[in-house]
Amino acid sequence: MTLVLTTYDWVPDFPRGFVRDIRVRWLLEELGRPYQVETVPLREKSPDHIARQPFAQVPFIREGDLTLFESGAILLHLSEGTVLMPDAQRPQVQQWLIAALNSVEPFAMAWIIPKFFDKDEAGAARREPLLRQRLGQLQAALGGKDWLMGDGFTVADLLMADILRIPAQNGLLDDLHGLAAYAERATDRPAFRKALADHLAHWRAADEKRSPA
Amino acid sequence: MTLVLTTYDWVPDFPRGFVRDIRVRWLLEELGRPYQVETVPLREKSPDHIARQPFAQVPFIREGDLTLFESGAILLHLSEGTVLMPDAQRPQVQQWLIAALNSVEPFAMAWIIPKFFDKDEAGAARREPLLRQRLGQLQAALGGKDWLMGDGFTVADLLMADILRIPAQNGLLDDLHGLAAYAERATDRPAFRKALADHLAHWRAADEKRSPA
Repeated sequence: MTLVLTTYDWVPDFPRGFVRDIRVRWLLEELGRPYQVETVPLREKSPDHIARQPFAQVPFIREGDLTLFESGAILLHLSEGTVLMPDAQRPQVQQWLIAALNSVEPFAMAWIIPKFFDKDEAGAARREPLLRQRLGQLQAALGGKDWLMGDGFTVADLLMADILRIPAQNGLLDDLHGLAAYAERATDRPAFRKALADHLAHWRAADEKRSPA
Repeated sequence: MTLVLTTYDWVPDFPRGFVRDIRVRWLLEELGRPYQVETVPLREKSPDHIARQPFAQVPFIREGDLTLFESGAILLHLSEGTVLMPDAQRPQVQQWLIAALNSVEPFAMAWIIPKFFDKDEAGAARREPLLRQRLGQLQAALGGKDWLMGDGFTVADLLMADILRIPAQNGLLDDLHGLAAYAERATDRPAFRKALADHLAHWRAADEKRSPA
């Protein structure tokens, strides 16, 4: 059964690398699962798009009769029964996946939105201490371990590391050596490199379609 | 195996009714599962607390050898294999649970924090349109259905309805009659009423301990 991943038809330069289809691509590369990419327009949200993603966002997947939105839920579903969510550790892997979505990402977004979308440096500065606190707590929880569960990379690491990318690229992990090394360890994986390359190639192909030769 | 739910030893009046142990209590009442309550100090975060909840929050649970934090992950784990997460609908129930945590709650919190914690009305007003948009999208997705999955109340409704409580109590659902009715239908359930009563009784008992007779 072919898995179809839907993302936008085009986005401006700024969010490239970070549109959340990257998370699903990364997971599918880790699992060695082939997939097809379909698109919905960024600008005009059709009723069909909203029927499949009620908040008019991406990504969503289709797998036979099943349509799923929410990158976190897609990761949860696709990693089930795989090496990325070992049965014996399932509750704890789910715990860390949800911690990434609900205890780390909202604090990252509360800083990213003023900083990069609104260009409101004062607003971003107000949010930064809380994000830094969360990142410090996360590093402490990681301790000396390679991955959140210990030795094995799981879907929780995949999601957490993806969320850490913007803070890492903007110096917020500079004083958190353990967490910085963790984030780098994750994004050095061949599956992430392949997913990112394919994600970026998708936007370049979209540019070419828009500007006739 | 006795399930132990840990919450704070005491909180001021303001957050009472909303400390997130309420979600776990609600679920356990829906399932008819007995549980014991233990506490950690609100003011002094011990190493033992942080070992069990790395962000120094509550709730967390203990069930035999398993300790779990993140209310969303606790709900996911405890509802597994129960009527609140029917096997045939599992991916979609998980999808809506994660939508509640990642696509609705962060927008509610972005408005609640300036509004009620920082007493920053201008800040809250800036966040309100995005929250209202999300709530409108949620109502559209619900359509005429009683619950997100249709006829059956699931753990996704429990979490979503809990997240809607503060917006509902502050007028943000006044123009969203379908969503307001949905939220009321959920919190009218005997399990929620019992959970809320026990949650509030916990804080009253804490007050009595603090003020010697």
